[in-house]
Amino acid sequence: MALSTPAGYRALDGKSLPQYLLDLDDVRRLLGGKPEQWTVREVGDGNLNLVFIVEGPAGGVCVKQALPYVRAAGESWPMPLERAFFESSYYTAVAPYVGGLIPTIYNYSPTLYCTVMERLTPHVIQRREMIAGRRHPKASPDVAEYIARASFFTSDLAGAFERKMDMTAIFAKNQPPVRITIELIFADPYRTNPRNRWTSPQLDEVCADFHRDGPLKAAAARFGDKFLSEAQALIHGDLHTGSVMVTPTDTRVIDPEFVMMGPVGFDLGAYMGNLLLSWYSQPGHATAADDRKAMQAWILEQVTIFWETFRDRFLALWRSNANGDAYPASMFPAPSDVPFLEGARRAYVDSLFADMLGFGACKMIRRILGFAHNIDFEWIKDQDRRGAAETGALLMARTLLTHPEQFHSISDVVAAVPYFVRKPGAAGAPIRL
Amino acid sequence: MALSTPAGYRALDGKSLPQYLLDLDDVRRLLGGKPEQWTVREVGDGNLNLVFIVEGPAGGVCVKQALPYVRAAGESWPMPLERAFFESSYYTAVAPYVGGLIPTIYNYSPTLYCTVMERLTPHVIQRREMIAGRRHPKASPDVAEYIARASFFTSDLAGAFERKMDMTAIFAKNQPPVRITIELIFADPYRTNPRNRWTSPQLDEVCADFHRDGPLKAAAARFGDKFLSEAQALIHGDLHTGSVMVTPTDTRVIDPEFVMMGPVGFDLGAYMGNLLLSWYSQPGHATAADDRKAMQAWILEQVTIFWETFRDRFLALWRSNANGDAYPASMFPAPSDVPFLEGARRAYVDSLFADMLGFGACKMIRRILGFAHNIDFEWIKDQDRRGAAETGALLMARTLLTHPEQFHSISDVVAAVPYFVRKPGAAGAPIRL
Repeated sequence: MALSTPAGYRALDGKSLPQYLLDLDDVRRLLGGKPEQWTVREVGDGNLNLVFIVEGPAGGVCVKQALPYVRAAGESWPMPLERAFFESSYYTAVAPYVGGLIPTIYNYSPTLYCTVMERLTPHVIQRREMIAGRRHPKASPDVAEYIARASFFTSDLAGAFERKMDMTAIFAKNQPPVRITIELIFADPYRTNPRNRWTSPQLDEVCADFHRDGPLKAAAARFGDKFLSEAQALIHGDLHTGSVMVTPTDTRVIDPEFVMMGPVGFDLGAYMGNLLLSWYSQPGHATAADDRKAMQAWILEQVTIFWETFRDRFLALWRSNANGDAYPASMFPAPSDVPFLEGARRAYVDSLFADMLGFGACKMIRRILGFAHNIDFEWIKDQDRRGAAETGALLMARTLLTHPEQFHSISDVVAAVPYFVRKPGAAGAPIRL
Repeated sequence: MALSTPAGYRALDGKSLPQYLLDLDDVRRLLGGKPEQWTVREVGDGNLNLVFIVEGPAGGVCVKQALPYVRAAGESWPMPLERAFFESSYYTAVAPYVGGLIPTIYNYSPTLYCTVMERLTPHVIQRREMIAGRRHPKASPDVAEYIARASFFTSDLAGAFERKMDMTAIFAKNQPPVRITIELIFADPYRTNPRNRWTSPQLDEVCADFHRDGPLKAAAARFGDKFLSEAQALIHGDLHTGSVMVTPTDTRVIDPEFVMMGPVGFDLGAYMGNLLLSWYSQPGHATAADDRKAMQAWILEQVTIFWETFRDRFLALWRSNANGDAYPASMFPAPSDVPFLEGARRAYVDSLFADMLGFGACKMIRRILGFAHNIDFEWIKDQDRRGAAETGALLMARTLLTHPEQFHSISDVVAAVPYFVRKPGAAGAPIRL
């Protein structure tokens, strides 16, 4: 099948890419020297895009280009190029607020669907670091700060609603990622679907149990509806630990192709849920030298730090930057108004907390019973240990969804986590619930 | 000030309108005869548009054309013509579901910003009928059916989310009406603003009290935020009793220029709030022959019928037309799933009930303390009686907003209404709270 692409589009390669970069003054200067001295490496290991690292005598850049099909599947699975436009538009929209926490964007080409951006080095993916048992104390508070700033400043709390509606009109066209999210996160893990995968036979029983669990399914569906309807702010849409690059002193959020106008709790939950997945996966990566218990304790600290940093920063931004059409400052001019406005702010943030737990739980479940898994569990070779770790995460997630009244504060969450740990059962047998 | 208008646009008049209609085959046949036999009357009494009734030997049509300025203010207050496009697009979007409850649309001209539609006759505006003490028993259940169908079928409960996102991308550009709503409904009545008007001195004290009322303002601001962020379905945006035309056997909803993707409770509240305003205004229209007590009892019946019809119809539509991406039917295939799915539906409708009360209360307050009032109260000549009637409505609305826990069902609402009635105080004096 030959895919038609817009006029001017061509997939870049080691030959055409330097020619393209040569025309970009800033990039040419940044690389230094002459194109003959530039090295190009294709490093894309994802499913969707070409990713190049280009290095010159003076510096390097990263180039990300959309392909018109799902790379992992080939041309038989077409995928609109426009996602590159939405990714670039997202970076542009949030850069004024989170400039230091995203890569610098040097250029976007609307004909090549190609973004030239800062080469992040020596940054590594946070998820891989956590699997390796390495701690990056800046990551969680930085991501919390990121979500607080990106969401507050693109909400109606911070600015004229026309600005949010303008963004809504644009990003409402970024539909293919929403199709993926609504099916793979909010529906498939709770119904029979050939795309689903799980550790079998270890999880056969829990999987069947989840498919039969009416209260769980109703709760997951409620969050699916909320995902589609609650247009609070511009959200990243896929903010798990695999979308965070870290060094000991620097944090960057990448890959915002799933950008949409949506609920802030979805980004919060993506990150928090993946911290919890990492916690449950740690015993699977234990060695004689490191039982990962200290790593687990550290992860739970990060859960608390993440939420509390977000909450405090969001509230602080609201107190100092209430220039929006929602809760307009001019309605609350008197000192006697303050406690009630402050109460409204607390209630708003409390609802984000509840959303974080619900969305986070959905994110946890989809990575264990749905189509797309993550390497935290996939890299556990022993299937009984993997199944036990995954079962603990599933039971925690189910409780978050079906018993939200048990979780009034982040300390309730942290306290509950260890109670759901399951030991591996008989070798190669389903884990009994 | 000369306003620039798009090429081809011109304000129609008695001469140019028949020429324009002559080219529309359906309309020409509907009118019958020849253009010389057609009579044209300009009947627009609103603030924004030209409205013509055209009659021929065989029938009539109504023609509504946007002007590039606010008619009541003149060319110094420009107003985008595009509202005519959004109105026409709304009719097109909901017609498959509520065809019998809106006017038939014959033509929309994108260059003239002009809609040719069914001439509704002998329909009259519901608000005026209620002021006159006349009852139209079909109106409230028909409007309830209308909101149930229009909102359910444009929500993610009924269809693929892409359809809703496509509508979102279009209607997110209809911003001027949202600017009016967010300021005039959710902010101005609670703050000092030169646009505000109220019956003075009778309401001076209650107005000052509302401006100081922290819990009330926090609640109103919460609903303002919800209005801007909760994109449940395509809503009419201005569905009060002045947007409903009635006969004893027929009901039509008109004037959807405020269309947006928004919370369903906003339309529900607009209608219910205006029923309550009518209730409180009735003593002001009492005569020796009719004390309006029977009319008041009838209005409270309509409040109950309105809510219960909406609730029952919305739930029935959901049970029989769950073809959407929200709460997908495929997640709930087993008989044992039914009670939990049904519980989720009840919870959804309960939240619409709470929204109806909150939005309805905001709509009541804005008509008494804000810029735009309605004739239910304005036509009460005795200012003391008017002030007393308005005060009752204000106190009821405040309780709906600040004590939502008191209202679990529509019968709680109906039971509370009479308790807030205030008698006129000393002639020309503020009403003491």
